Amino acid sequence: MRCWSAAKRKPHCRGRGSRASGARTVGQLKLFADVVRDGSWVEAVIDTADPNRQPIPKPDVRRMFKPRGPVVVFGASNFPFAFSVLGGDTASALAAGNPVVVKGHPSHPGTSELFAGAMLAAIESLDLPRGLFALLQGSSHELGAALVKHPLTAAVGFTGSHKAGRALFDLGASRPRPIPVFAEMGSLNPLIVMPGALRERGDAIAKGLAASVLLGVGQFCTKPGVILVMGEAEAFVAKLEDEMKASQPGTMLNQPLRDNFAQRVAAWGKIPDVTVRVASKPAGYALITASLFETTADVFLRTPELREEAFGPAALLVRCGGVEDVARVLRVIEGSLTGTIHKGSNDDARTLLAAVEPIVGRVIFDGYPTGVEVGHAMVHGGPYPATTDPNSTSVGTAAIRRFVRMVAYQNAPDALLPPALQNANPLGITRTFNGQRTAERL
Amino acid sequence: MRCWSAAKRKPHCRGRGSRASGARTVGQLKLFADVVRDGSWVEAVIDTADPNRQPIPKPDVRRMFKPRGPVVVFGASNFPFAFSVLGGDTASALAAGNPVVVKGHPSHPGTSELFAGAMLAAIESLDLPRGLFALLQGSSHELGAALVKHPLTAAVGFTGSHKAGRALFDLGASRPRPIPVFAEMGSLNPLIVMPGALRERGDAIAKGLAASVLLGVGQFCTKPGVILVMGEAEAFVAKLEDEMKASQPGTMLNQPLRDNFAQRVAAWGKIPDVTVRVASKPAGYALITASLFETTADVFLRTPELREEAFGPAALLVRCGGVEDVARVLRVIEGSLTGTIHKGSNDDARTLLAAVEPIVGRVIFDGYPTGVEVGHAMVHGGPYPATTDPNSTSVGTAAIRRFVRMVAYQNAPDALLPPALQNANPLGITRTFNGQRTAERL
Repeated sequence: MRCWSAAKRKPHCRGRGSRASGARTVGQLKLFADVVRDGSWVEAVIDTADPNRQPIPKPDVRRMFKPRGPVVVFGASNFPFAFSVLGGDTASALAAGNPVVVKGHPSHPGTSELFAGAMLAAIESLDLPRGLFALLQGSSHELGAALVKHPLTAAVGFTGSHKAGRALFDLGASRPRPIPVFAEMGSLNPLIVMPGALRERGDAIAKGLAASVLLGVGQFCTKPGVILVMGEAEAFVAKLEDEMKASQPGTMLNQPLRDNFAQRVAAWGKIPDVTVRVASKPAGYALITASLFETTADVFLRTPELREEAFGPAALLVRCGGVEDVARVLRVIEGSLTGTIHKGSNDDARTLLAAVEPIVGRVIFDGYPTGVEVGHAMVHGGPYPATTDPNSTSVGTAAIRRFVRMVAYQNAPDALLPPALQNANPLGITRTFNGQRTAERL
Repeated sequence: MRCWSAAKRKPHCRGRGSRASGARTVGQLKLFADVVRDGSWVEAVIDTADPNRQPIPKPDVRRMFKPRGPVVVFGASNFPFAFSVLGGDTASALAAGNPVVVKGHPSHPGTSELFAGAMLAAIESLDLPRGLFALLQGSSHELGAALVKHPLTAAVGFTGSHKAGRALFDLGASRPRPIPVFAEMGSLNPLIVMPGALRERGDAIAKGLAASVLLGVGQFCTKPGVILVMGEAEAFVAKLEDEMKASQPGTMLNQPLRDNFAQRVAAWGKIPDVTVRVASKPAGYALITASLFETTADVFLRTPELREEAFGPAALLVRCGGVEDVARVLRVIEGSLTGTIHKGSNDDARTLLAAVEPIVGRVIFDGYPTGVEVGHAMVHGGPYPATTDPNSTSVGTAAIRRFVRMVAYQNAPDALLPPALQNANPLGITRTFNGQRTAERL
């Protein structure tokens, strides 16, 4: 399909975050290009033979990662650049050597086609196989289901709502030949402010936190949705309220998202013992203002609907009596992408860290979760329902591991081995040779 | 539960393979002990901060593997030593730091209790938490289902039949919080003998192959079940027939397995254009003799029931016209643990390798698939239905990766980081520091 034929339509670009996420797209692609150029990502492991071993001879065994097969990527609505057509999922699947079929998100078809056109032009100019990449547009569930159920599909990358992600995961698991659906489905991203941090820099935290909640009109999967504070927090809460009140209305990605958000926060406002500090007001097409809610640990513990993500510019403050209260709250929060602890110079965060770590993929200290650094160490993942696989990440170079399979070769003639496993190490990659890392030839 | 209280019952040990698999149990445990002692398996990755980076500062991000949570292991019937109570799944799950609950296989409850007793005694003498290990015995499906569905279970290891493995996989995937079920479910393990190999060493291959098919009375998951030969193969087939005929009857693991096997091979014998070269004869309790069938590529292609695994001492010879015929047969064989190619000095195996590799986890040259070396490079895995996850192995040190999750720490104070990620590198492990491997402190 020649996607660039339709590329002259006005792209549905978004203002907020576009520059940063554009930089991230380039960053992800560049990092994966480095990883592919280096080549060591295949994890070549070579155990050589020992014909004299007793009771039986030891064979020569060599293994590496190979591409898993065609990958279907569902573009996310909230990152038309960094997590849609040419985002992290596509970059990591291609880097591992798999063809990619993208199901474009219906809320930015024009942007999707621009990206697909760039990709297809690159494929043409490099004389790569045309089947390496395709974009399908459409909004029907049937289209997505057909892609997941196609016999040749080997894996799926998805970013979006829990409902859609779980439906695709279930489809993948129930196939005659099950395939993994790596779904990233958003989360509450609890952020804790310890008493010392409140005292030492409460105003600055309130300011930074409001900016993080409001970034991209609250539509980041890492938006801190639940703020846990202990002790004397009135000044901090007042400052946060001021910041949220002073914010400008923002345009959400599309009207249904805005309407869902408005409904959710309206329902929160009606829960007894939940105080509305700032109320969201819907305006014209997809416009909305920020909201801030406040409640106690006890109310949070007994009110399951407060633990549902409000995807948009809202945060819920939970006033806690102390560390034990915070730990109780964390125990009822389900798997999250991130957990953040703001500590003062004399706060001991050990107990809180032990309570946060089991439910998140990334623990952040004295910062905000909404920036996701693209690097070797990043984990943009977490226990279910943040993702469907807590041993994976969709951002950073480790994302490549989702789209591979392991293959071993036993007593293979050197010339028949993939170059990565040949004695002469023609790719010059770093390998594990009888347990030791080396870039040497054997 | 104090398993050793019942350990004086006569253990149901098996003769065949017990010595080798006993050595393998020790080998697996020793190898994992080395891996844990070394400590680098956690894959510590450290990307340091750059406060001056534009357009935004770069944070300090560090990641590592952490234990996934309680693992349920289903003991296999065919490896009471190497893949049951204290087998590879248990060793790798414990090595990763997870507690393990074993569901013992009902066909060797005595052996299971002896192993569990040894484990619990070790836990006691080392003063480890008692909850680190438990054995549950029983034969009801409800017991297995309850273990997979328990909210605290984080992953499952299974070796056995496709029917049972798929049922457990489906249970794991359909939980409110899905968990992976790493099921190894056996396979056809195609073995190809090329014309040059037939000419150069046909008799030796026939002898080695018969021994491999008959090892453990044909109850190895890597038993070569389908033998593909090209060209002048009559002498080879006759020799293989002699070897199979000359073999002694063997006792299978239990009567139901024997009866299933006898039924399957009896059904094969009734398929038109399938020649019975040697017929299995059931004898007393669980006893059976070997069988050998012969057919053509065309019959194999049009007869789906020939592609079902016959778990026991049987092999099916498929006579092929040439490499193209072999490739056609391989295209209808589903995912297998192994694929083997015997080539002569002048045979070009490139085309065959390209046809075998996509459907297997391990390619073997000029050998037999039934020995599974325990090492860093081993892959005992393969595409579905050989296993439920082609990016995993249940033998070798890479097995540890099934039972972990990734966690990242951003801008964490050094003292709060896990030792594996602290600047001083107190564990002395090898880490990836800004993209370079090093065992140094920072």
